[in-house]
Amino acid sequence: MDATEKLVAIEEIKALFARRVRAMDQKDWALYDTCHAPHAVLKSFSGAQTGLAALADDGGVPTATGKAAILAAIRALLDGETKVTTVHHAHTPEITLTSDTTATGIWAMEDLLWWCDDGVEQRFQGWGHYYETYEKIDGAWLIASRTLTRLRTVETPDFFRYLAKRPA
Amino acid sequence: MDATEKLVAIEEIKALFARRVRAMDQKDWALYDTCHAPHAVLKSFSGAQTGLAALADDGGVPTATGKAAILAAIRALLDGETKVTTVHHAHTPEITLTSDTTATGIWAMEDLLWWCDDGVEQRFQGWGHYYETYEKIDGAWLIASRTLTRLRTVETPDFFRYLAKRPA
Amino acid sequence: MDATEKLVAIEEIKALFARRVRAMDQKDWALYDTCHAPHAVLKSFSGAQTGLAALADDGGVPTATGKAAILAAIRALLDGETKVTTVHHAHTPEITLTSDTTATGIWAMEDLLWWCDDGVEQRFQGWGHYYETYEKIDGAWLIASRTLTRLRTVETPDFFRYLAKRPA
Repeated sequence: MDATEKLVAIEEIKALFARRVRAMDQKDWALYDTCHAPHAVLKSFSGAQTGLAALADDGGVPTATGKAAILAAIRALLDGETKVTTVHHAHTPEITLTSDTTATGIWAMEDLLWWCDDGVEQRFQGWGHYYETYEKIDGAWLIASRTLTRLRTVETPDFFRYLAKRPA
Repeated sequence: MDATEKLVAIEEIKALFARRVRAMDQKDWALYDTCHAPHAVLKSFSGAQTGLAALADDGGVPTATGKAAILAAIRALLDGETKVTTVHHAHTPEITLTSDTTATGIWAMEDLLWWCDDGVEQRFQGWGHYYETYEKIDGAWLIASRTLTRLRTVETPDFFRYLAKRPA
Repeated sequence: MDATEKLVAIEEIKALFARRVRAMDQKDWALYDTCHAPHAVLKSFSGAQTGLAALADDGGVPTATGKAAILAAIRALLDGETKVTTVHHAHTPEITLTSDTTATGIWAMEDLLWWCDDGVEQRFQGWGHYYETYEKIDGAWLIASRTLTRLRTVETPDFFRYLAKRPA
């Protein structure tokens, strides 16, 4: 790729990332479903979602593999019987092209979650970094993997108790 | 436009957006006045500013039309008799060029407002998305319209009571 | 520079900025040390760090000059005897190239700091704007100066008392 083609790729990857977080916060699952590669791997449920057995692999880090599994996991968490209001904001991307069709990205992030448990509002707020990889498939950049590291989380005292009560 | 020209336009629109929110938070009204097209339409006072009769159209959604009206409305709200400290942060833009001289943008956003009412501090915090359109006029990109959708707002109990007391 | 070269420079400067704040929040001091020009000047400790005599110049605005001094100052503040958890998020950059090898940048910002003082958590949150200059030296963009202006800060009552207790 020449310099312009690289810049186009970086802008497309930034917009891809933007669609993914907007789709999640707006619960636009049709849009969310367009963001990941078929074989995408997600390891981003650290901290907030530790209670979710359905997403936990052997190492104790919750993981989802494949775009259908990723969509099902996030949809069940945020838009199932209990509606979770979420805000995911991400900042200062560091996008690195590793070939004509692969790239990596690091994003500073903050997320907020609110939900009601028996009439009591629960709240989670966290800060960290997304580490992602991207692949260009059939002319479109897609998210191939995502890991989330945390700097800090703050939650209401009963946040994790409530999560543990949720069906797997 | 070729690929480079499109990238230049996207960067100019991002910087335009950046100037608008910085001008608002720094109360730099001369700079703010350079950001909107003459015929710009603003429908972004949902939630926080519901009490403002001067900005409400028939449908109940506060609106301002024309760059002078937009400036007057925001200036009266934030920098009139009562000074309102504001922070507007916006993230992960999705800029789409729809012609050589028109574009759309979606921005994730957060805003914070603080002011004092009879010595008591009032506070508002909100999260949502700006939906904007842009036009290139005489070589410069300008904001042609803005709508704000909300994911969530949190405010002190007397925030809206105070707003309703303000002169229209 | 042609249009593409300018866009490459802007993207490189954005990524440079991203590395600097990530290095600070992740306490990756080797990475942090790659971000500033040898002669860089920092005037960004307004507000939160007013008590730090070691960083205060004659005018009362804490300053550090030279990349080694900047690294030493920030490292002592955040990663000395007391570990300070920090989050620095920055938004909507306005990057202006002033020559082939110099540029300016304005970034909206928010920072959060947490630490423990005798078992009591202290917390600082601030909002403002970074004003930076950049220089391209030996092919790499570097931060040449940084000033921080504040819109607002909020801190726990004993935050500044604790800072004043820290060794200079």
